[in-house]
Amino acid sequence: MFSKATYLERRATLKQRIGSGVLLFLGNDDMGLNYEDNAFRYRQDSSFLYYFGLSQAGLAAVIDVDEDREIIFGDELTIHSIIWMGTLPTLRNRSFEAGITDVRPAKELADYLTGVVRRGQSIHYLPPYRPEHHIKLWRYLGLPPDHQEGSIPFIRAIVSQRNYKSEEEVAEIERACNVTADMHIRAMEVLRPGMYEYEVVAAMNYVAESNNCQLSFPTIATINGQTLHNHYHGNRVKSGDLFLIDAGAEVESGYAGDMSSTFPADKQFTDRQRAVYEIQNAMHLESVKALRPGIPYMQVYDLSAKVMVEGLQTLGLMKGDAEEAVHEGAHALFYPHGLGHMMGLDVHDMENLGEQWVGYNGQPKSTQFGRRSQRLAVPLEPGFVHTVEPGIYFIPELIDLWKAEKRHASFINYEKVEAYRGFGGIRNEEDYLITPTGARRLGKKIPLTPQEVEALR
Amino acid sequence: MFSKATYLERRATLKQRIGSGVLLFLGNDDMGLNYEDNAFRYRQDSSFLYYFGLSQAGLAAVIDVDEDREIIFGDELTIHSIIWMGTLPTLRNRSFEAGITDVRPAKELADYLTGVVRRGQSIHYLPPYRPEHHIKLWRYLGLPPDHQEGSIPFIRAIVSQRNYKSEEEVAEIERACNVTADMHIRAMEVLRPGMYEYEVVAAMNYVAESNNCQLSFPTIATINGQTLHNHYHGNRVKSGDLFLIDAGAEVESGYAGDMSSTFPADKQFTDRQRAVYEIQNAMHLESVKALRPGIPYMQVYDLSAKVMVEGLQTLGLMKGDAEEAVHEGAHALFYPHGLGHMMGLDVHDMENLGEQWVGYNGQPKSTQFGRRSQRLAVPLEPGFVHTVEPGIYFIPELIDLWKAEKRHASFINYEKVEAYRGFGGIRNEEDYLITPTGARRLGKKIPLTPQEVEALR
Repeated sequence: MFSKATYLERRATLKQRIGSGVLLFLGNDDMGLNYEDNAFRYRQDSSFLYYFGLSQAGLAAVIDVDEDREIIFGDELTIHSIIWMGTLPTLRNRSFEAGITDVRPAKELADYLTGVVRRGQSIHYLPPYRPEHHIKLWRYLGLPPDHQEGSIPFIRAIVSQRNYKSEEEVAEIERACNVTADMHIRAMEVLRPGMYEYEVVAAMNYVAESNNCQLSFPTIATINGQTLHNHYHGNRVKSGDLFLIDAGAEVESGYAGDMSSTFPADKQFTDRQRAVYEIQNAMHLESVKALRPGIPYMQVYDLSAKVMVEGLQTLGLMKGDAEEAVHEGAHALFYPHGLGHMMGLDVHDMENLGEQWVGYNGQPKSTQFGRRSQRLAVPLEPGFVHTVEPGIYFIPELIDLWKAEKRHASFINYEKVEAYRGFGGIRNEEDYLITPTGARRLGKKIPLTPQEVEALR
Repeated sequence: MFSKATYLERRATLKQRIGSGVLLFLGNDDMGLNYEDNAFRYRQDSSFLYYFGLSQAGLAAVIDVDEDREIIFGDELTIHSIIWMGTLPTLRNRSFEAGITDVRPAKELADYLTGVVRRGQSIHYLPPYRPEHHIKLWRYLGLPPDHQEGSIPFIRAIVSQRNYKSEEEVAEIERACNVTADMHIRAMEVLRPGMYEYEVVAAMNYVAESNNCQLSFPTIATINGQTLHNHYHGNRVKSGDLFLIDAGAEVESGYAGDMSSTFPADKQFTDRQRAVYEIQNAMHLESVKALRPGIPYMQVYDLSAKVMVEGLQTLGLMKGDAEEAVHEGAHALFYPHGLGHMMGLDVHDMENLGEQWVGYNGQPKSTQFGRRSQRLAVPLEPGFVHTVEPGIYFIPELIDLWKAEKRHASFINYEKVEAYRGFGGIRNEEDYLITPTGARRLGKKIPLTPQEVEALR
């Protein structure tokens, strides 16, 4: 937890921005894997953490803006739970650390909200993303799951705070980034042909866990980097493979790191791997060079795509005007995802509140394949923390689909592309803080250029 | 997955035992930590795994016993999901591996169940333990969460199959037990004063993950062994501490291992630690010696408690008739949990179906403190797999409570107990298969006697 002053100030700003009404924060509950008492690791809702700092299952919080009242709803430990779970500071004491003195039993929330509705106050709640949220909103507010939209003023007020990371937040994120970097460096040190992917994952998790960190998201560690969200780790790595990792640590306070790296199973890249890697590297370095307050991140995405198209033209895989190719979306055959996303208490920060509000300031998103996966489009501002993660992939199913349709045939040399069918994919990813004058990488450096990668391998 | 014949036979037996009606199996969904797409590791419901073998989010299955029809409801991958998740065998093909040829889109389930209700067939469903189950039963059957009891005939039919482990199941459990043993042995090798608990956890997880296993439940690894379900790992281990571990691996097929071990932070036990450890060791060895078909496991629990009372009498902590002390529940101050539980696809096997049915054959459980935590009471039968895990603890809060009430003062020397206030706790746990003539330990041996422990340390 941060100091009491941090939470008091965050809530004061929130109340001032929202103006009136009652704000309902539903904390996350414990969740059983295969029966109720066999729980996944506990993760509190990030907005709940941001405003109240309490990481405990079974809580809810209410801010009555009209009456300037802040209440935590939750239960104290019983003697039974002390025997099984140990002595802990009371909920009352921990709430006090977050500047809250009004703590009530969990079962009083339903009646409290009924009173709010009866008094005619408006209730603001956030879009539910866990089934327990759906059930609670159904019970407390009588809204069936399909009619739980979330309050846009509430969302916008939160985004307008959480988008800007304070110094103490940046320090936590940087701790997560340092552990994240060590995870990647360790993987580069241990990978050898003949290993199974899960052995590399185990080595990376050891780095996270021995630093008292959790994972900020499920690790990707694969010889099939062309599959973007590949969580299968059962393949055996062989000489000639490219190995792609996307993984990050989460520190105890909940802040995330998120990096990607790609390196050969052998000690050196093949000539063909190096040629594509150099293009991806140029995308990465040009994007980082462009980071500064005021530049729309969609413009940096366009830049990264243009650098790729020009690079693939030198290999004969693409043709025609590079800017036009990007405008038409032809690049997305090789680069079907975005350049990056906000990062903070969530690895995709505030994704549960809606990307339209976090990365687009309420404007509609493009529907173009590839571009529509860009999660952050607005002009960058000091205090933003986001990832830079361009990639180049050869996805057989997508190549077959586009080729059969002759899609963007004026920009793509499909015959030449065939030769890269088993190539795999390349992505590298770093995390940046936008400063008043430019940008600063967070966390220690991981090998990025082909020379740096080969030096570590 | 096992062979098609296994699943066909399991379902044929189930249909025969239940006789009539429609059986509804709700598979588990993906669950987001902090937003929908950032999912916990996926875990299928164990009964779904047992009868259908399919480990994939978003499935349901129906067995219409009256019409002898078996249907999987779920969706095939789209080109979008192939790009993001990779090429996988189709749901239709995988269902075929489980002997099912009728595969329908997920959205057809609601109408199908409406038809079942209209035709007047009875629907059997299992007790829900995940909030998504509650929502589905609410939607499909119109039952609010408080009125979703589960079908007792369905529960009993499943328990009457899953209680008896086949040879191929025992082989999977034994694989999990071997990795579990290696986790404990590794912890005993690495622990040194000055380490943090989470460093030991990281070393154990590395063993599990580098063997392509998950954890079957959240690891306990603590200097505060007196707290029974302690998942905090932030303490620094110091000389003189006792370190208690309860942890297990889950193999890919879903079968669990579960072992406990206790050892000193130093290379040797202190005299006092050794004296209590010897008593716990006697409880363990006497319990194991008693395992055989026909003996009620509650009787073995009573035996383990009696051995403890007699041992603590030699230390002057207890007094009076040992059997009477156990009958009255006085032992539970030091031994407040059960001797063991069934183990299989769940570490507490079928706990979601209700312990009354799994371990008590429908008979009511005792309400006595300590004894009520015994999860398995019925006579042991060949094919049962269960844990043996007696323990001795000094729980300050419980001692204070009982002492203030003078509870069982004729059996407990409270003044002598005071001296053990900071002792901690001791538990050792192994997994056993009941055979036609006795019992067989599953998995390799971990150090159990004080001599064995000190030899490894």
